[in-house]
Amino acid sequence: MRLSRAFLATLKENPAEAQIVSHRLMLRAGLVRQTAAGIYAWLPAGLRVLRNISQIVREEQDALGAQEVLMPTLQPADLWKRSGRYDAYGPEMLRIRDRHERDLLYGPTNEEMITDLFSQAVKSYRELPQVLYHIQWKFRDEVRPRFGVMRGREFLMKDAYSFDASYDDAVATYRRMMLAYLRTFQRLGVKAIPMVADTGPIGGDLSHEFLILAPTGESGVFFDAGFEEQDWLAEQVDTDDHASLGRFFERMTSFYAATDEKHDEAAWDHVPADRRREGRGIEVGHIFYFGRKYTESMGVSVTGPDGEAFHPEMGSYGIGVSRLVGAIIEASHDDNGIIWPDEVAPYRAAILNLKAGDAACDSVCEALYASDPDNLLYDDRGERAGVKFADADLMGHPWQIIVGPRGAAAGTVELKRRSTGERIEVPVADALARIAKA
Amino acid sequence: MRLSRAFLATLKENPAEAQIVSHRLMLRAGLVRQTAAGIYAWLPAGLRVLRNISQIVREEQDALGAQEVLMPTLQPADLWKRSGRYDAYGPEMLRIRDRHERDLLYGPTNEEMITDLFSQAVKSYRELPQVLYHIQWKFRDEVRPRFGVMRGREFLMKDAYSFDASYDDAVATYRRMMLAYLRTFQRLGVKAIPMVADTGPIGGDLSHEFLILAPTGESGVFFDAGFEEQDWLAEQVDTDDHASLGRFFERMTSFYAATDEKHDEAAWDHVPADRRREGRGIEVGHIFYFGRKYTESMGVSVTGPDGEAFHPEMGSYGIGVSRLVGAIIEASHDDNGIIWPDEVAPYRAAILNLKAGDAACDSVCEALYASDPDNLLYDDRGERAGVKFADADLMGHPWQIIVGPRGAAAGTVELKRRSTGERIEVPVADALARIAKA
Repeated sequence: MRLSRAFLATLKENPAEAQIVSHRLMLRAGLVRQTAAGIYAWLPAGLRVLRNISQIVREEQDALGAQEVLMPTLQPADLWKRSGRYDAYGPEMLRIRDRHERDLLYGPTNEEMITDLFSQAVKSYRELPQVLYHIQWKFRDEVRPRFGVMRGREFLMKDAYSFDASYDDAVATYRRMMLAYLRTFQRLGVKAIPMVADTGPIGGDLSHEFLILAPTGESGVFFDAGFEEQDWLAEQVDTDDHASLGRFFERMTSFYAATDEKHDEAAWDHVPADRRREGRGIEVGHIFYFGRKYTESMGVSVTGPDGEAFHPEMGSYGIGVSRLVGAIIEASHDDNGIIWPDEVAPYRAAILNLKAGDAACDSVCEALYASDPDNLLYDDRGERAGVKFADADLMGHPWQIIVGPRGAAAGTVELKRRSTGERIEVPVADALARIAKA
Repeated sequence: MRLSRAFLATLKENPAEAQIVSHRLMLRAGLVRQTAAGIYAWLPAGLRVLRNISQIVREEQDALGAQEVLMPTLQPADLWKRSGRYDAYGPEMLRIRDRHERDLLYGPTNEEMITDLFSQAVKSYRELPQVLYHIQWKFRDEVRPRFGVMRGREFLMKDAYSFDASYDDAVATYRRMMLAYLRTFQRLGVKAIPMVADTGPIGGDLSHEFLILAPTGESGVFFDAGFEEQDWLAEQVDTDDHASLGRFFERMTSFYAATDEKHDEAAWDHVPADRRREGRGIEVGHIFYFGRKYTESMGVSVTGPDGEAFHPEMGSYGIGVSRLVGAIIEASHDDNGIIWPDEVAPYRAAILNLKAGDAACDSVCEALYASDPDNLLYDDRGERAGVKFADADLMGHPWQIIVGPRGAAAGTVELKRRSTGERIEVPVADALARIAKA
């Protein structure tokens, strides 16, 4: 994209309404604009980030055998009356009445609807397990929406739901999802640590929240440094084998990790002092086993091997996709702006033409840009070099390809790595190979 | 995807509530399920079709220089009060009140919001033209939702909006969009013909509806057979040149085309008798120039070359993405089921294992499936051959790869082309190359 033509207006001043750094930077870098309290329009660069995150989430869900569907945003109230949650859910549920005076609601989550869809399609234990997910906009009518997309009202979430024939199978599904989440966050370029969370009346230990480490996080966290050293993409797990999944899960949970609410000083004392890490975290995901809560309350069953009907075991697994955009920025920025991890950046690199109108500079820039226009942002504006440097840092492209008159004459460009500030001079012909993904 | 594991329940019986063929086939082939009147959940195969269509629409919008954004589903009523449409819009607008008693609405269209976003970002004529679009769910509270996704309440639409400095520039944008639409529908594998539509108080001839030819269409259409012979993908137009765009538009509009409402018998008489075609059509797109209607009413202007502020000229350009799924089926099916055009099919081919459990059949099927599991549906169920043939015809995969014990022993499979019924026997090793896209 040519910046001169892009619908991408950066702001020099900090918007007054933005209290936290990710909100400020998302407005300043032209990623989103607020259209109503807690409701945002995604501008082209922001949408690219949202889509990059969605795609990584999708690939890891697909890899574990989950199947993608797309449920509508509006749901009939009747469905929630069946589960008993319609009256229980508070004022965060946006209740709507249509022209025929039928009660609808804007879905804040989809347990009821997926359970109903499941019951229409699956009749026998032979078709289990089933894991279904969608990536869809949700609405929660927060009393005080704030922090930009971090606590918005209309938000994009991946929510998956599993159906298993037995508790043991449900545990295996939960562990597969745990691995998929660890892989997902690692691919997104952030450190997300699973922490045991409340299970409520269900009990057991099958509830984890995933927190991204960021100094501005809402929760204090205590964890074993061993977590940060793991490469979950290289983890050898036979996900068809319950024993292999069990070993993975045991190893994973052997590292201490807890939010301040759940912190256990006695267990913490057993973590070697040089491995103790304290920080703050932002919740971006939650996985949760809840058994037969919905299949029982909604009367959904399938036929077992003995011909008897039984209620399948369920779990739900959420990732806050739009929230992640803010959370990643909270975890990865400096005073000059965003530092996008490679995998989620809206553009791989910005080409900075330091002297637009100079024949040599224009020619080098145009040739570079033409080689991959979809993944490069070409700053072809007639602005001063300082403005271009500042905007590129603000927008946080992983690389800047800096083209000045001296270099262009000599056939070289300068590459700047946003995350480290490192600069190297390379021949024009090598530039794109040097910034290619590892 | 293995059909034995797929969340894809076909129905043998025609659902009683479905009045038209696309609705029946979409339910029977497991593409959608209704969750409330006129509101549908998209199951995995249906979502794949929806995404294939969206991607072609997106590519053609991007190619003309439009930029993708994503506006939220809910809009503040205030925005519509600024344009004067809040009170004018009838009961099809779903009006919502949030917990703070603020009036929201579920967007049926986005002229107001995009004009507001434009005004925040664009200040000078130098930044024109701008064409912005999104592919987002809309809601229209139809009094009698019916015909499945063809007249649903929650529906997916691509809507683009253009901003130009002058009428001439707006005309050029309109013509570029016309070409993009002709290309889009051709790539989707359907015959869509643009028909002059009402412009209301704006006047002029810059309003066209696109109708897909289908015997069940809601409108009668009359058109010159010349339309069907055009290859818009090969059309040579310099879209930067107003004169070249003008020649293209003149040629395109030289073919007679009109709905029954607008039919002009005198003009029709000038079409040679052997080129006259009559049929029925389903509206799937509408492009519309409306000048300064919103920029004036909402007080949006940019600075011109003379330093004076002026109101940009606008147009809007819609494609009914979810409606297209139904419309394509209306245009392309037979008594046995759907006949998907190659470009939108959920799967490229189904592999039919006629004797699941037979070592040779299983081995051939597994090897074929492993070569491209994302684009093949493997019918590995323990069903009779007749059931598998019927389901594959119903689901409408462009190709069937039929693996029986005799062929498997001889190293051959049978390929069936869904659209023609043609069957050929080929060596296993050649099967995937034979069904590859042209």
